[in-house]
Amino acid sequence: MMTEENYLCPGERIDDLERSGLKIIQNPAKFCFGMDAVLLSGFARAYKGERTIDLGTGTGIIPILMSAKTKGESFVGLEIQKESADMAERSVSMNDLQKKITIACCDFRDAPDMFGKGSFDVVTSNPPYIKDMCGISNPNDAKKIARHEIYGSLEDLIRTSAALLINGGRAYFVHRPSRLAEIMYFMHLYKLEPKRMRMVYPFIDREPNMVLIEGRRGAGSELRIEKPLIIYGGDGKYTDEIYDIYGY
Amino acid sequence: MMTEENYLCPGERIDDLERSGLKIIQNPAKFCFGMDAVLLSGFARAYKGERTIDLGTGTGIIPILMSAKTKGESFVGLEIQKESADMAERSVSMNDLQKKITIACCDFRDAPDMFGKGSFDVVTSNPPYIKDMCGISNPNDAKKIARHEIYGSLEDLIRTSAALLINGGRAYFVHRPSRLAEIMYFMHLYKLEPKRMRMVYPFIDREPNMVLIEGRRGAGSELRIEKPLIIYGGDGKYTDEIYDIYGY
Repeated sequence: MMTEENYLCPGERIDDLERSGLKIIQNPAKFCFGMDAVLLSGFARAYKGERTIDLGTGTGIIPILMSAKTKGESFVGLEIQKESADMAERSVSMNDLQKKITIACCDFRDAPDMFGKGSFDVVTSNPPYIKDMCGISNPNDAKKIARHEIYGSLEDLIRTSAALLINGGRAYFVHRPSRLAEIMYFMHLYKLEPKRMRMVYPFIDREPNMVLIEGRRGAGSELRIEKPLIIYGGDGKYTDEIYDIYGY
Repeated sequence: MMTEENYLCPGERIDDLERSGLKIIQNPAKFCFGMDAVLLSGFARAYKGERTIDLGTGTGIIPILMSAKTKGESFVGLEIQKESADMAERSVSMNDLQKKITIACCDFRDAPDMFGKGSFDVVTSNPPYIKDMCGISNPNDAKKIARHEIYGSLEDLIRTSAALLINGGRAYFVHRPSRLAEIMYFMHLYKLEPKRMRMVYPFIDREPNMVLIEGRRGAGSELRIEKPLIIYGGDGKYTDEIYDIYGY
């Protein structure tokens, strides 16, 4: 009989996602998902019957959470790092989600050729935040690949997302506020118009550290900015909304 | 002897700006400045010796406030509506600021020809917020001209601002959050890179109703988003920061 430990390779562990009994395999020496992925899974929407693809899925955290949080029909997760893709695939099996979630190990820039243009209703991505190769000593380092734009730039990500979506389809990204001007420039350029945005502030009197943004393929230019998402209250504890997104 | 009343035309009144004894002439039947202009004057910076130009200055509120709040050397205010430009000019005289502030009645799109390209260190603008001619019954209506993009689009404004600035010069705009994607697109396109931004929220748990943005001509793309500017506290009164910007 398969026990959960059968799914693990050396150095890996199983974490409880506190949502619908879901669990995920991670290797703390490599890369663990952060709050950004969880917030994106709470910000993104996938409606009944919709086909969803996550670009740079890492351990598969976003499709796994969205399979429980949304009514989306199918979820594809693309990951270029073989080891992460393998881990994601084992998490999918362990959660018995093989019918809903497909993990593929490939370069996201090849996705429009692999799946066809306009073949998804929803794209999600929690991409690397850091622009250049600055400080990259070892380009095989899993953490660095997850954090730096080694396999595809921000422009590549946005162009590819637009190509994968049907007209009217939606893309959801989480990124650093410092990149917001570029994000909006490329979204508008590739006709993935920014329609909804939320700034994430660690505290109400601090600079934001994340931005959540939704674009719609082929839409007109009118952006709705939502109320601030604040992580910690004055007491230093998570705000109710953060607890809610985490599913407590 | 000139008394303050000598500066007034019928229907006009004099308002105290609560800052350095400054006053401004306004006609409540036409258009009075709003909080957006005051917040922009608090967000914008003009350093010692800098030449500043305000595009669509209305009653001259922004150069008048900035002449007191900053160390900028000279302030030009352009206004296409003759009546408003005339009112602004009388406010400048009444405050004895003729040596610092010049008001000109013209189309801001002609400014690069009139003043020369690269002839300013700082541009400011609180432009019309509404995109098209939608709902315009009387294009001579002063309020409508102040609110709708009749004399110049957002793209015109950003292109002209970039043309007027020296390399490294700064532009400061206040606008509606719904236009943010367009603003960032055009700023990047015309090499007036967004460098600093602040969202203005009426209450901490509401959507923002204004955005303040600084662009720098020829700069690289890295945006700093500041902590939220919140207008009202939980008690329904202005927050300390708003009182501070208003100069109480």
